[in-house]
Amino acid sequence: MMMGDDVENGNLGPYLDRPRTFPNMCSKPYTPLIFRILRGINVRVLVILLFLGFGYVFYIGASTSPIIVFVFSVCIVSFLLSIYLTKWVLSKDEGPPEMAQISEAIRDGAEGFFKTQYGTISKMALLLALVILSIYLFRNTTPQQESSGLGRATSACITVAAFLLGALCSGVAGYVGMWVSVHANVRVSSAARRSAREALLIAVRAGGFSALVVVGMAVIGIAILYATFYVWLGVHSPGSMKVTDLPLLLVGYGFGASFVALFAQLGGGIYTKAADVGADLVGKVEQGIPEDDPRNPAVIADLVGDNVGDCAARGADLFESIAAEIISAMILGGTMAQRCKIEDPSGFILFPLVVHSFDLVVSSIGILSIRGTRDSNVKVPLEDPMTILQKGYSVTIILAVLTFFGSTRWLLYTEQAPSAWLNFSLCGLVGIITAYVFVWITKYYTDYKHEPVRTLALSSSTGHGTNIIAGVSLGLESTALPVLVISVSIISAFWLGHTSGLVDETGSPTGGLFGTAVATMGMLSTAAYILTMDMFGPIADNAGGIVEMSQQPDSVREITDVLDAVGNTTKATTKGFAIGSAALASFLLFSAYMDEVSSFAREPFKQVDIAIPEVFIGGLLGSMLIFLFSAWACAAVGRTAQEVVKEVRRQFIERPGIMDYKEKPDYGRCVAIVASASLREMIKPGALAIVSPIVVGFLFRVLGHYTGHPLLGAKVVAALLMFATVSGILMALFLNTAGGAWDNAKKFIETGALGGKGSESHKAAVTGDTVGDPFKDTAGPSLHVLIKMLATITLVMAPVFL
Amino acid sequence: MMMGDDVENGNLGPYLDRPRTFPNMCSKPYTPLIFRILRGINVRVLVILLFLGFGYVFYIGASTSPIIVFVFSVCIVSFLLSIYLTKWVLSKDEGPPEMAQISEAIRDGAEGFFKTQYGTISKMALLLALVILSIYLFRNTTPQQESSGLGRATSACITVAAFLLGALCSGVAGYVGMWVSVHANVRVSSAARRSAREALLIAVRAGGFSALVVVGMAVIGIAILYATFYVWLGVHSPGSMKVTDLPLLLVGYGFGASFVALFAQLGGGIYTKAADVGADLVGKVEQGIPEDDPRNPAVIADLVGDNVGDCAARGADLFESIAAEIISAMILGGTMAQRCKIEDPSGFILFPLVVHSFDLVVSSIGILSIRGTRDSNVKVPLEDPMTILQKGYSVTIILAVLTFFGSTRWLLYTEQAPSAWLNFSLCGLVGIITAYVFVWITKYYTDYKHEPVRTLALSSSTGHGTNIIAGVSLGLESTALPVLVISVSIISAFWLGHTSGLVDETGSPTGGLFGTAVATMGMLSTAAYILTMDMFGPIADNAGGIVEMSQQPDSVREITDVLDAVGNTTKATTKGFAIGSAALASFLLFSAYMDEVSSFAREPFKQVDIAIPEVFIGGLLGSMLIFLFSAWACAAVGRTAQEVVKEVRRQFIERPGIMDYKEKPDYGRCVAIVASASLREMIKPGALAIVSPIVVGFLFRVLGHYTGHPLLGAKVVAALLMFATVSGILMALFLNTAGGAWDNAKKFIETGALGGKGSESHKAAVTGDTVGDPFKDTAGPSLHVLIKMLATITLVMAPVFL
Repeated sequence: MMMGDDVENGNLGPYLDRPRTFPNMCSKPYTPLIFRILRGINVRVLVILLFLGFGYVFYIGASTSPIIVFVFSVCIVSFLLSIYLTKWVLSKDEGPPEMAQISEAIRDGAEGFFKTQYGTISKMALLLALVILSIYLFRNTTPQQESSGLGRATSACITVAAFLLGALCSGVAGYVGMWVSVHANVRVSSAARRSAREALLIAVRAGGFSALVVVGMAVIGIAILYATFYVWLGVHSPGSMKVTDLPLLLVGYGFGASFVALFAQLGGGIYTKAADVGADLVGKVEQGIPEDDPRNPAVIADLVGDNVGDCAARGADLFESIAAEIISAMILGGTMAQRCKIEDPSGFILFPLVVHSFDLVVSSIGILSIRGTRDSNVKVPLEDPMTILQKGYSVTIILAVLTFFGSTRWLLYTEQAPSAWLNFSLCGLVGIITAYVFVWITKYYTDYKHEPVRTLALSSSTGHGTNIIAGVSLGLESTALPVLVISVSIISAFWLGHTSGLVDETGSPTGGLFGTAVATMGMLSTAAYILTMDMFGPIADNAGGIVEMSQQPDSVREITDVLDAVGNTTKATTKGFAIGSAALASFLLFSAYMDEVSSFAREPFKQVDIAIPEVFIGGLLGSMLIFLFSAWACAAVGRTAQEVVKEVRRQFIERPGIMDYKEKPDYGRCVAIVASASLREMIKPGALAIVSPIVVGFLFRVLGHYTGHPLLGAKVVAALLMFATVSGILMALFLNTAGGAWDNAKKFIETGALGGKGSESHKAAVTGDTVGDPFKDTAGPSLHVLIKMLATITLVMAPVFL
Repeated sequence: MMMGDDVENGNLGPYLDRPRTFPNMCSKPYTPLIFRILRGINVRVLVILLFLGFGYVFYIGASTSPIIVFVFSVCIVSFLLSIYLTKWVLSKDEGPPEMAQISEAIRDGAEGFFKTQYGTISKMALLLALVILSIYLFRNTTPQQESSGLGRATSACITVAAFLLGALCSGVAGYVGMWVSVHANVRVSSAARRSAREALLIAVRAGGFSALVVVGMAVIGIAILYATFYVWLGVHSPGSMKVTDLPLLLVGYGFGASFVALFAQLGGGIYTKAADVGADLVGKVEQGIPEDDPRNPAVIADLVGDNVGDCAARGADLFESIAAEIISAMILGGTMAQRCKIEDPSGFILFPLVVHSFDLVVSSIGILSIRGTRDSNVKVPLEDPMTILQKGYSVTIILAVLTFFGSTRWLLYTEQAPSAWLNFSLCGLVGIITAYVFVWITKYYTDYKHEPVRTLALSSSTGHGTNIIAGVSLGLESTALPVLVISVSIISAFWLGHTSGLVDETGSPTGGLFGTAVATMGMLSTAAYILTMDMFGPIADNAGGIVEMSQQPDSVREITDVLDAVGNTTKATTKGFAIGSAALASFLLFSAYMDEVSSFAREPFKQVDIAIPEVFIGGLLGSMLIFLFSAWACAAVGRTAQEVVKEVRRQFIERPGIMDYKEKPDYGRCVAIVASASLREMIKPGALAIVSPIVVGFLFRVLGHYTGHPLLGAKVVAALLMFATVSGILMALFLNTAGGAWDNAKKFIETGALGGKGSESHKAAVTGDTVGDPFKDTAGPSLHVLIKMLATITLVMAPVFL
């Protein structure tokens, strides 16, 4: 806060030089093949290709079902809308040169890391694709496949192609999230100099752009695959594949998406939190300089982290959530339609795609309902940004309920059970309410307006130790209500579906699981708006960092601070939402897995009996996997942060002029250290998650073979999956909530409570915040992805266990 | 360390006054009824009653089986030995008056708390007994019971009587643990002034006394119940109950034991750690005075805590472990013997009792193998106490393996499968090896000679935050190896049993589960020695406190410090052992539960299918229960510690003379605060653990009734139990190991590493230690008990779910 004369005279000296020394980033500008190819293509060729693509898409859509054409149209319209939003955002000014320079440094760091990271990921994906290919070339075929003439080679190609497409789309989703964020941050900072409302608007629309692209891409990707397979395999011509079996071919897409999302989240999460923790420990705690102070050598790394960790990774995460949920719901819809002998099952199968098309529509309306005020160039006091975002959310949610009822009536009406659609609408409503309650619970436990965080803040006054104990207890306790809510919603959705009137040949009700699937869709029916709010957070956070670094007046900083605080709340609530949907989606994928296994094993696989010792052990190993994965994710952040701490300390010692603004810190070295460490550290937990279910399944398959226990491998993996899901949900809730609560307890003290900034309570609260960082932004979100990745990997790798 | 003149002149002033102002303890000397009755009895009457008791015991023993007579004899011999050990310990001198006075203050505090705590527990136990009684009076009877004429009333009385006896024995076990500890501590301190070896010997023999009593009581209690029921119900006379059904009547005993142990562990654990954390936070961190410094007002409360938390609670915990394991193994032995139509099944049923009788014998030999050196009055350099204890352990374990082979040959030989006994011996060996590996893994993760704790200590050098992150990751990671070991040992013991040659009527192998049971017994076959080592810890710890408080020379303190450090290691390793046996025991009880349900429901109950949504939700709720329970246990410590911190701070402010030894701190107030807070705080988590399985089971029973799903309640509870067991094992491992590692990382720094005492690293390490305290001594050990309590409560409360 004590700035020297040279600062007041505008002599920022070294800070106006472009801090562009990122050795690792720029000296090794490794560009993955895919980027090089895309860059090499002429723009006109690209446009022609695009048109050809559209033509193809509509051709196959028209040959499949009018529903698909509807989905395509909505997606394309929303892509156009997202292009409009980008243009609008990019048309804003980048502010004074010092802002632009900082922003450019952030952009370089983020893009450099992204390229290296996705280069590594794409190599791993190619390797895995080869493994999948070889497994599928040796797998047995199912009776259905045989009857439809789907050979091993075709089946292998389909799975691998879907996997690679899923991985590619996920990569694009991540890139889009990061791209918009690194371009919008500086524009938000610049706008904050003029008007709070305008700054808010830019952040929202930038978030909206990437949300529309992410959701749209998930929907259109699956729709294209579905339609292509439909046309290619000649579904519905006699003797060929049945349409109800088609969705099972899409699981590769979900696996590809979750595979990339897992590494994106791990690498990004480790990057962002290692930089944050390292910067805070030396800057805030030891040197007592504020957050995002330009004197801190790790500050650029910290700001880069927001983009690669929060934006890119969350884009990939939500993309994968939606993809997994759509595919699992399509599989269940198909299975149910087949059991109930529904004449035209395409409504049941394509229902999830339509729900998400409407999601795009209603979320766009919600996003556009947030408008600039007329007097946008006057500094009017800002309406609480949370209220503005909430208003948009209310619009979205009301429209979502209406369109949900509409689409159930449109697609799920069947003469066999005339009132079934109404039951399913209610399932959707259950999902929407669940999402709402989840968001409320997360807010209750992480917002300092409520009692838990206040108690946590109070416990800081008796020291670091009591603060940590209280935070851990708070996090552990916060798992209870969400679990109760999930339990009630699974049971009620199941029973609503069960009593829908849909019955199989033997007359027993079959709609239960599909009811749960519809509830999941209800939960995700406003996903694009939720993602917009989520993306808003890191953009505002980054804008604040740029404002601070470019030494803007306090009034500007105040505006970005308000936006940042709102962003923290939306980020925390989105996590509640993400974990809720992961829980439901993974329960659905589990059912799909059992269907898959029984169809390949040619014997019923209906039960996972944990009274069998081996199956129980599978469960034990599954839960253990979650603990070990979380351990490695947290440890990675701790280790990398220690490297940052040492580097920052070294710079402060070797360049004593930094603290007086006389010497320039070497930002690039911190960026390089964090980047290479996160790439190294993401491999171990990621590999654990991918290898363990395969190894466990294979080992128990062999054991089962020698002990005369058929299907043992598949059963053990099922138990592993279920126990890992349960433990994963609980652990993620614990980590996310504890982290969020610590963060806000610190913020509460910073408002002046319990001694305010600089007091002993504040120091204890900063320790809590530091501990919470890897919890809530590395291990927690990685667990969301892990849960769904486990569900898709077991589906794709099922042949290994049989 | 800067002591004023008055101290050097021996003018300890206020410290020589008996610090006996314990308002809550002495002003309300509430003595439970049972104590008052026992006190009122004349000694001669007692002796006569005792002889009558012995006569009765041998009479029913002789009417049952010679094996029971053998068990009785061994138990009585070991009781006599334990009386000898007490006499030997009590014959030692209590040292100078200041030591005796401190010890008396500790004793008063401990006994006062114990009485109040067990008063509360006994009221709750009586209430629960009434509930059980009324449930059993309305339950259906099993076909076996009907055929044997065992009516509802008899069955109800048997269960309630067993429950109360179990509760009573557990109370006695806890009391014995505490009693010996509060009497031995001062004698160890006094002996430390003369000879290290003598001090060690007293601590070991005092621990040995309570270990022999605890294990002996578990064995003789079950044996008496078994024999009484055998004689009373006229087993083996035609038309009456079969001997193989008898063990199921004993589950009440196990439930009583685990019920009391749960509250003992919770109350004691909260007490000890709240006092410890509170004392450390103000004393060590804020005021910079050493641990156990007489100027700290919370020091007596801290020392009292060691006795009520570590000694009393651990006694109850181990008592309950052994009881639960014996009963579950007896049930499984009976079931298997019945299925295999073995002519004389009593060998299989009584095998666990014999194993533990031999445990008493070999552990006694192990304890007595530790002897004083001849020159016990000369101060010779002490041999590493860990080596001495390890030598004793080696003797015990070798003898245990031999006797285990002997007892399998004696009791498990059957002509139907002549080599079965050999397989079961190997199962026992698997258990013994598992215990050994568990101990090794715990040591690896918690001892500062190994890499994990050193890395943790290193992470302290970058601050409080990185220390906590590293500790949490270490704890989470440390769950992996034990889970792998447990998995391998369950599978190998199961397969050894499975291939033992024992087959049922249809010719399919049946010995698998019993194999696992035998492995559990192998694991616990040196329980008495392990408990001795465990009890050794808090006694040494307390002795050190007394030495410090009575201002003995440094050389004396050094001796007790060495003993204390060894005690920490043995405590940590015992926890690994306890959790391993809890995992196995609870897996056995789960099988017993399924047998129980199928016999009452009169239909087979062989599968717990987690693919059914309700059952899955049961699992989710079970795991959640563990998280919530841990949260509440940790939060209780945090809250109580905050009260202590405030009180200690207040005393330091209001009595500034304390720091210069001029004013006397009010120890009693701290004792009173901690005592009343722990009693209040133990209720919530304890009630949660007892009520939730009953409520969940009942609700789903009703739901199942209305949705036409029979046995739904029982299935959901089974899933709850299994998931809770798995999550409980992992959570307990995490909490125990993280806590132990933090403690030792601090100790490692205190040896002078990384800046040593007083450095920033040390402060960060102290924060870690503080956080670890409720982890490793409250929540962690409570989870051991909780896991087994859940298993026994589901067994006893099964009628509610059906």
